[in-house]
Amino acid sequence: MRRFLWLVPLVLVFAVAAQADEGMWLFSDPPKDMLKKKYNFDEPQSWYDHVRMSSVRFPSGSGSFVSADGLVMTNHHVGVSAIQRLSGLANLKIKNPKDRVDYVRDGFHAKTLAEELQVSGMELLTLVDITDVTARVKGAAAKEMKPEEAFAAKRAEIAKISAEATKGKEYRGDVVTLYQGNKYHLYKYKRHTDVRLVFAPEQQIAFYGGDPANFAYPRYDLDCCFFRVYENGKPAQAKHYLTWSKDGVSENDLVFVSGHPGHTDRLNTVADLEYNRDIRYPAMLQRLNRLEVLYTIYSMISADHERKAKDALFSVANSRKAIYWGLSGLQDASIMNKKKAQEKALRDAVAKNADLKDLGPAWKTVEAVQKVRAANAKRFNLLEGGQGFNTTLFAYARTIVRAADELAKPDAERLTGFNDSAIPTLKFGLEAKRAIDKDFEITKLGDSLGFLVEQLGAKDALVQKVLAGKSPNVRAFDLINGSKLHDADYRKELFEGGKKAVDASKDPMILLAKAIDADARKVRKELETKYQEPNEGAYDKIAQAKFAIEGAGTYPDATFTLRLAYGPVKGYLEDNKKIPFQTTFEGLYATAEQDKNRPPFDLPKRWIDNKAKLNLKTPFNFVCTADIIGGNSGSPVVNRKGEVVGLIFDGNIQSLVWDFVYTDVQGRAVAVNSQAIPEALRAIYDAGDVADEVVNGRRK
Amino acid sequence: MRRFLWLVPLVLVFAVAAQADEGMWLFSDPPKDMLKKKYNFDEPQSWYDHVRMSSVRFPSGSGSFVSADGLVMTNHHVGVSAIQRLSGLANLKIKNPKDRVDYVRDGFHAKTLAEELQVSGMELLTLVDITDVTARVKGAAAKEMKPEEAFAAKRAEIAKISAEATKGKEYRGDVVTLYQGNKYHLYKYKRHTDVRLVFAPEQQIAFYGGDPANFAYPRYDLDCCFFRVYENGKPAQAKHYLTWSKDGVSENDLVFVSGHPGHTDRLNTVADLEYNRDIRYPAMLQRLNRLEVLYTIYSMISADHERKAKDALFSVANSRKAIYWGLSGLQDASIMNKKKAQEKALRDAVAKNADLKDLGPAWKTVEAVQKVRAANAKRFNLLEGGQGFNTTLFAYARTIVRAADELAKPDAERLTGFNDSAIPTLKFGLEAKRAIDKDFEITKLGDSLGFLVEQLGAKDALVQKVLAGKSPNVRAFDLINGSKLHDADYRKELFEGGKKAVDASKDPMILLAKAIDADARKVRKELETKYQEPNEGAYDKIAQAKFAIEGAGTYPDATFTLRLAYGPVKGYLEDNKKIPFQTTFEGLYATAEQDKNRPPFDLPKRWIDNKAKLNLKTPFNFVCTADIIGGNSGSPVVNRKGEVVGLIFDGNIQSLVWDFVYTDVQGRAVAVNSQAIPEALRAIYDAGDVADEVVNGRRK
Repeated sequence: MRRFLWLVPLVLVFAVAAQADEGMWLFSDPPKDMLKKKYNFDEPQSWYDHVRMSSVRFPSGSGSFVSADGLVMTNHHVGVSAIQRLSGLANLKIKNPKDRVDYVRDGFHAKTLAEELQVSGMELLTLVDITDVTARVKGAAAKEMKPEEAFAAKRAEIAKISAEATKGKEYRGDVVTLYQGNKYHLYKYKRHTDVRLVFAPEQQIAFYGGDPANFAYPRYDLDCCFFRVYENGKPAQAKHYLTWSKDGVSENDLVFVSGHPGHTDRLNTVADLEYNRDIRYPAMLQRLNRLEVLYTIYSMISADHERKAKDALFSVANSRKAIYWGLSGLQDASIMNKKKAQEKALRDAVAKNADLKDLGPAWKTVEAVQKVRAANAKRFNLLEGGQGFNTTLFAYARTIVRAADELAKPDAERLTGFNDSAIPTLKFGLEAKRAIDKDFEITKLGDSLGFLVEQLGAKDALVQKVLAGKSPNVRAFDLINGSKLHDADYRKELFEGGKKAVDASKDPMILLAKAIDADARKVRKELETKYQEPNEGAYDKIAQAKFAIEGAGTYPDATFTLRLAYGPVKGYLEDNKKIPFQTTFEGLYATAEQDKNRPPFDLPKRWIDNKAKLNLKTPFNFVCTADIIGGNSGSPVVNRKGEVVGLIFDGNIQSLVWDFVYTDVQGRAVAVNSQAIPEALRAIYDAGDVADEVVNGRRK
Repeated sequence: MRRFLWLVPLVLVFAVAAQADEGMWLFSDPPKDMLKKKYNFDEPQSWYDHVRMSSVRFPSGSGSFVSADGLVMTNHHVGVSAIQRLSGLANLKIKNPKDRVDYVRDGFHAKTLAEELQVSGMELLTLVDITDVTARVKGAAAKEMKPEEAFAAKRAEIAKISAEATKGKEYRGDVVTLYQGNKYHLYKYKRHTDVRLVFAPEQQIAFYGGDPANFAYPRYDLDCCFFRVYENGKPAQAKHYLTWSKDGVSENDLVFVSGHPGHTDRLNTVADLEYNRDIRYPAMLQRLNRLEVLYTIYSMISADHERKAKDALFSVANSRKAIYWGLSGLQDASIMNKKKAQEKALRDAVAKNADLKDLGPAWKTVEAVQKVRAANAKRFNLLEGGQGFNTTLFAYARTIVRAADELAKPDAERLTGFNDSAIPTLKFGLEAKRAIDKDFEITKLGDSLGFLVEQLGAKDALVQKVLAGKSPNVRAFDLINGSKLHDADYRKELFEGGKKAVDASKDPMILLAKAIDADARKVRKELETKYQEPNEGAYDKIAQAKFAIEGAGTYPDATFTLRLAYGPVKGYLEDNKKIPFQTTFEGLYATAEQDKNRPPFDLPKRWIDNKAKLNLKTPFNFVCTADIIGGNSGSPVVNRKGEVVGLIFDGNIQSLVWDFVYTDVQGRAVAVNSQAIPEALRAIYDAGDVADEVVNGRRK
């Protein structure tokens, strides 16, 4: 049954946090007491360490090792940009347009190791060590310092800590800000830089039902793909990997999710949430709508255009839906009133406690700095965030121009992203070969230059400098056609040539990046010193207040770092109807039948042809209450034994307020069942080799 | 060949107006001297009167009588909303969802008069008389009046003039403001209210190539459909109709276009153009992008959803493309600099002429009132323009609530739209039967309420009243499900019951319309008195200055009233390639072949099946330099003899700056060739009856 979610009134009922299975917990501080008390789950720290070391961070999502031979599982929609890049590179060698490949549309299966395709520029990370460095970072900023001095001192200390953790190119150290400024942890990652594509299904079944089904449930998506990590040209031997459950899940089973939730705003003050509601989310929605139209109409032109824009279109449409329903939640007075009541209770308690009197003004500080944020956000997003220059070539130019300036400075004084600890990752990305499609880049840049003019006004001096007297589309045409940055060798040459080479370059994109750099840095500095630094200081105090009044045992907001969530597998009630906890392949075929295989509910040809080979009773997707958010895509779902029972790929519509508030009355995480994957690999794709490897944990 | 228009730098070269065939001329003042001099065209006034009386105004476009038996030709995309409504009404009687009809997707052909389908609520207009009433209107406002008094006095006089021209329900009088306030003309229309659908092709061929082809050229679109006007239950006998040319056009032929260009801003001052560039166009683009995404994703859900949203989606996508490229033109400094130079020359000349000293300050007035416009536009569009309440049911509620208040006042004091002269049209629309789809209305209203919150802010008192503590989507769900306004009988009952019935109504949509009415009227009045009235006064003076300095013989900006344009049939150069003046059916099949019949370049099944019956050499579409704009869609193209040689349906991308400036270096109007229509009717649609009627000018 297809369901039209805006017809179901999304009335949120708040569960009391103590009862609900809320939380994106740090692996260094999992909620062991709670798990023991509520679920009689009492595994030693080694259980958590093993799950952590088996987990993998993708550039925009999560994954896990599922075989001793370095096989990594993630969502198709996490791997899709890499899969698309592989199509692009393969097509460079193909002369006849009719022979062009599209691995996103048609899927991919390497039948041998030799056929596995290396993804240029893809870096996966495993979190090998966590250290609390709060005292060092906070200690670097003396009390008498001005905000800009404190900011600089902390950043210098962070650079130093990160550098210490980095050994050559094998490891990378990141200092993570937790509780919006209350704690700082050093995360040491092992870098995996030889990553190859093993298997991907057709996007049509990975993202079955397209936008109408996205963030909906029941679902029927085989949203998985497999990569393999190599070391020294051979499959990496993984010490930690997750074994496969053949039994899947039953309703009420306790399960765990290990992944990288990207961003939440649950600890935000009301003023901060109002900023999100009134400014940040509407601006994001406006931009996403614009890009979705642009990429959609571009895709209509031809199959080749569709292929080129596919990843970008998926990404903006996915974000648009999340933002739309998140904003709808923020606009719901009942949610905001609840947040107000919670905040008032905490502030009242602080006011009554003389020991906490230094903490009281923190809320007003957060409120005050929202104005700085509001005044600078638009310009920051356009110039520093790159919204005004939506092309890969500008991103390259920006990196090269900045590196030329930054690398000449001592490590401690550099912009974040240009510290010694980050350079291997930066170079790896810059030098990776990419198939750059000039016409798509012109389209994107022309549109974003138009957006820049609209947002800053045609009379803005910077805008006039950028346009050089031309219309946005003509200027984009000239910039993209004039630049040589599509050539990886030229990028490397400029990067390695340093400031001298960059200063000598006449490349129009380099000249553009140089021309706007002072303005971009200025607005960045304004926000860093007048918003970010005082904001972190205030949230540090608010966190102290929460710990003092409500006790410890809370988790920090999501920061795209590894977290553990948990909860039971469980259906829910919607519009007085019971939504079952799982679906089957049978339901997939029934859904396709319902409207005569009409897109986006059509089945790929293989699924029609091989239907008879498939056990239709196999569970396909299921839901659980584990607390996830964007970034968790590709996270393994494991049972008490640490075995893979599923693969997170989505949340339902009712989970889209989890950005601000968790409720498990209807909100659910959505996963592919572990049983569906080998069944489909064997019956539909003739990929028994991959199925055997995941089930056995080892290649044959 | 498919062409990707953002890859072609749109560098506009300005033609000198005297050489170019610029102008949307009044039928009461056609450029006879110019036509005689340049084209040796010297027909008497009766030629113009015949073309005028054969022309028809549609609710959102143009058309013409093409047979003595009341047959009216227009574009498919002009008729599409009526065609869609007919599908909706037909489906009300169909129980099984699988039997539902979709005349937009599948086309329609009435083989007999009895099968012709009456379009409930559709009103066509013929312009039967034009009178200059400038002296009466301007005379009504005494010099010493305040702006609000002058505004009221002029509106009262306009109501009186309109009422005088209205005889019962048969005629309608509209007073049109020309030259932005310099002249006022009374247009007397004959109303045609029994209109029936005769023939429509599949939208797929009418709008062949979809968005990528829209506003592009070469084209292959059969963008036509036919209605018939009835009188007393029988086909109307048209005294004036256009005869059909069997010869079509050759390059350089002089042709004329008679239609209703909707809106241009060519006489705008620079300050006014900057308002368009900086505020109006970006706001429109933002809203159109949002609606396009909403309707697109709604359409994905099922074939039935697609059918319901089709007209709305076409309309917003079409506007979005026009606005996008129009804005790109406004952002082109070379265009704005040209406008600045022209304005400076005129103002300098005025300054040097003592007789014109009263006119000098007018430009500053226009500049000043743009600030009033900017301050009120957002609220006006949301509350008075209905952007915040995007559902047909709210539009009904607004009309009913307003009518209850307005009809109790003397005619002279009523809001525009509620004068006695307008009531027959208003009632006709209100009482027409419509199939209202609740789920689509909830979707639209929920989204627009969200937009309202974003635009006015969640803390706005009116917003809080509108939402009643709910999220936008939940509120929309309650409003649509609670209202009975989908029922035409209930609407009629409330309208006829007047204020008493409206005050007694507990219908939630009526209550909402009442709740916001004071605020909506307030912002309307603010704009009318502080922007519109002084703006018209200033433009009156600017027009006087132009006439004094540059001489008479210019045409007023477009006002969705009947105009005559002319120019040669003519190809053009683009990117150094010659674009031929016409296409053929052969090119259509080649284009479909190019990407294996991939949507939106796929052919309808009938066109594949009947290819062999078609003369592939038949000219299909052509271009000419006639000066058109949105609203001209459906305009007949006639030759020197007044015969139909084509049917305007689009302009190319380069014509999208014609809103501000005309240039015929590349800009072109795009038309269906008269030869293509009977050929397709016979070979593809087995509709020889319609083909014979257009060719012979009479039913058999």
